[in-house]
Amino acid sequence: MFEKKDQKQAGKSSELTALSELGEFGLIDRLTKNIQRFHPETLKGVGDDAAVIATGDKVMLLSTDLLVEGIHFDLTYMPLKHLGYKAVVVNISDIAAMNGIPLQMTVSIAVSSRFPVEALDELYSGILTACEKYHVDLVGGDTSSSVKGLLISVTITGTARPEEVIYRSGARSGDLLCVTGDLGSAYMGLLILEREKKVFQVNPAMQPELSGFDYQIGRQLKPEARTDIRNVLMGAGIRPTAMIDISDGLASEILHLCKQSKTGCRLFEEKIPIDPQTRELALEYNIIPTLTALSGGEDYELLFTVSQSDYEKIKDIEGITIIGHMTDNSGEKVMITPDGKQVELTAQGWNAWTSGLADKRTSGPVDKRTSGQAD
Amino acid sequence: MFEKKDQKQAGKSSELTALSELGEFGLIDRLTKNIQRFHPETLKGVGDDAAVIATGDKVMLLSTDLLVEGIHFDLTYMPLKHLGYKAVVVNISDIAAMNGIPLQMTVSIAVSSRFPVEALDELYSGILTACEKYHVDLVGGDTSSSVKGLLISVTITGTARPEEVIYRSGARSGDLLCVTGDLGSAYMGLLILEREKKVFQVNPAMQPELSGFDYQIGRQLKPEARTDIRNVLMGAGIRPTAMIDISDGLASEILHLCKQSKTGCRLFEEKIPIDPQTRELALEYNIIPTLTALSGGEDYELLFTVSQSDYEKIKDIEGITIIGHMTDNSGEKVMITPDGKQVELTAQGWNAWTSGLADKRTSGPVDKRTSGQAD
Repeated sequence: MFEKKDQKQAGKSSELTALSELGEFGLIDRLTKNIQRFHPETLKGVGDDAAVIATGDKVMLLSTDLLVEGIHFDLTYMPLKHLGYKAVVVNISDIAAMNGIPLQMTVSIAVSSRFPVEALDELYSGILTACEKYHVDLVGGDTSSSVKGLLISVTITGTARPEEVIYRSGARSGDLLCVTGDLGSAYMGLLILEREKKVFQVNPAMQPELSGFDYQIGRQLKPEARTDIRNVLMGAGIRPTAMIDISDGLASEILHLCKQSKTGCRLFEEKIPIDPQTRELALEYNIIPTLTALSGGEDYELLFTVSQSDYEKIKDIEGITIIGHMTDNSGEKVMITPDGKQVELTAQGWNAWTSGLADKRTSGPVDKRTSGQAD
Repeated sequence: MFEKKDQKQAGKSSELTALSELGEFGLIDRLTKNIQRFHPETLKGVGDDAAVIATGDKVMLLSTDLLVEGIHFDLTYMPLKHLGYKAVVVNISDIAAMNGIPLQMTVSIAVSSRFPVEALDELYSGILTACEKYHVDLVGGDTSSSVKGLLISVTITGTARPEEVIYRSGARSGDLLCVTGDLGSAYMGLLILEREKKVFQVNPAMQPELSGFDYQIGRQLKPEARTDIRNVLMGAGIRPTAMIDISDGLASEILHLCKQSKTGCRLFEEKIPIDPQTRELALEYNIIPTLTALSGGEDYELLFTVSQSDYEKIKDIEGITIIGHMTDNSGEKVMITPDGKQVELTAQGWNAWTSGLADKRTSGPVDKRTSGQAD
């Protein structure tokens, strides 16, 4: 067995560090800094959307995600079928962010005895619906009880030819920064669902007022992964230089690309694609619309960079927007507002240990919401 | 979004089924019965120790395990470093059970804010120690907060040549049933730790009485995976016909082999390898020693079958014991006692939703423990 001193050392309470002091990214850095690599087949380990493993003439991509009730989802407004669907989609999105094709998946669940079997039938129905839509084989998993709540752990594999894989680290100064679809709507969907939950808690006889917000609620409850973009870009003869999916919010993902590519960036606020209704809703909630995109997260769109020489090829592709460019000054990561001001992009990150579900994305710039809801 | 009826259907409480009614194996069967397969590369999905995926001239093995605090481990006697080590080993054991070589691993953890960063350092120290020992690359993961307790989800990959992979389904009538190492000690280690926990709860000034039981406690807290067996058997020119690792207990694993191979089996009680001190300890606890092996679990030894024609090759290999043989009567799965009686082997399984940690392995035949502890 191990030496006894380890336990004693961990027990010295005077020197202990709270998880909230480090936050998610700090913790990951700390826990992964001593990792060794034993196999040359492991081309890329921790630090991108997926690991990359050499397997003959192709590579295998490997990614994993953990969804915890009360942290990542709230079953009072997230139907179990949607939850199952979303749990699969967020993992497929990681494979799409590497420019790969998803193949197989394992799903483990821990569930307390308060859930009936039929609830898990619903969950799996959503999982299998997503598997069918994205052609992913569910090949394994583990089923366990939990002390409290539901927890879902999904691991996915994908495939690509080695030269197709796109890392976060490939962006160069001058590259155009592009995004698919529009941003911020998943976050506004969450706020609507949270609001109706509160109304319901005050007066259970009230029916939820969700009609008219189908787009935002759909983006939150049933997001899709952009596996289509691989073919769109290949068809246009474009190979992105770096890519990441937008799970935490645009600002956080841009900073990931900058950090790993060792570049700066200039983002133009007016270029950020936001659905008009989402923009209007944000204002009703006293939130600057741009912040729903920068910090909202969960849109599962792709953020990528392309060489400037690809400008003509990419500028007219529907559903792709050029929102800025990378610079050689790695100290400068800024957003330019319509009136020409420069705002520094800050890592939203997400400190899971100081905030619950509802507060998750309202820390930092989106905190105006708590000061009043205009409707 | 999905149709609304799904949610309503799941809400009809009159028709709901408790998880405890189905149990783990029943639930897995129910949830996985509608799985489709989309990719020919997926050679084997749910139903063995690992999935098998074709990747060029080799196959990739993929397996996953979930460990939940209060269900699978108790931090009052499981040091975090040991927990990290064990979480890795139980996954490596799944790859060993397919006759593969472990390669890469992802580790996701959900942890509540009650844990300091130093506790996770300890956990990862154990994880990385196991990675180093077994040469496994830690390539990814997810770190999240939990509402309560610690949860660890590990997914592992392995490799093998296609012809090397050994499934649970390959046993034939007449094949010899073999086991590595000895069984039941991990379970007795758990009972010792549970007993000392109870003593400590009654009188916190008492020091735990663990000395003299190093072997049993080590088997429980720091198990090892039998990755060595692959080379031992290859060296002896033996290719098992079926294989599984012993995580739930010998009886349960034998029944898995029989079910998937469509055979019966005859197990000889006196052949089951049990450490002499473990045997003695079991008697002190009023437990029939054989039951620690049949139902205890967590020994992570390998159970496998070989052709009768390999008898001469295998009979003298140290650390491998022939304990019975497979039969063509799939209705007969029996243990022969020393006095010639036949006892039917029953699936222990483990109904996670009706039992907590301490009770986990004491349901069924091992329930004598609750009637008295002879020390």
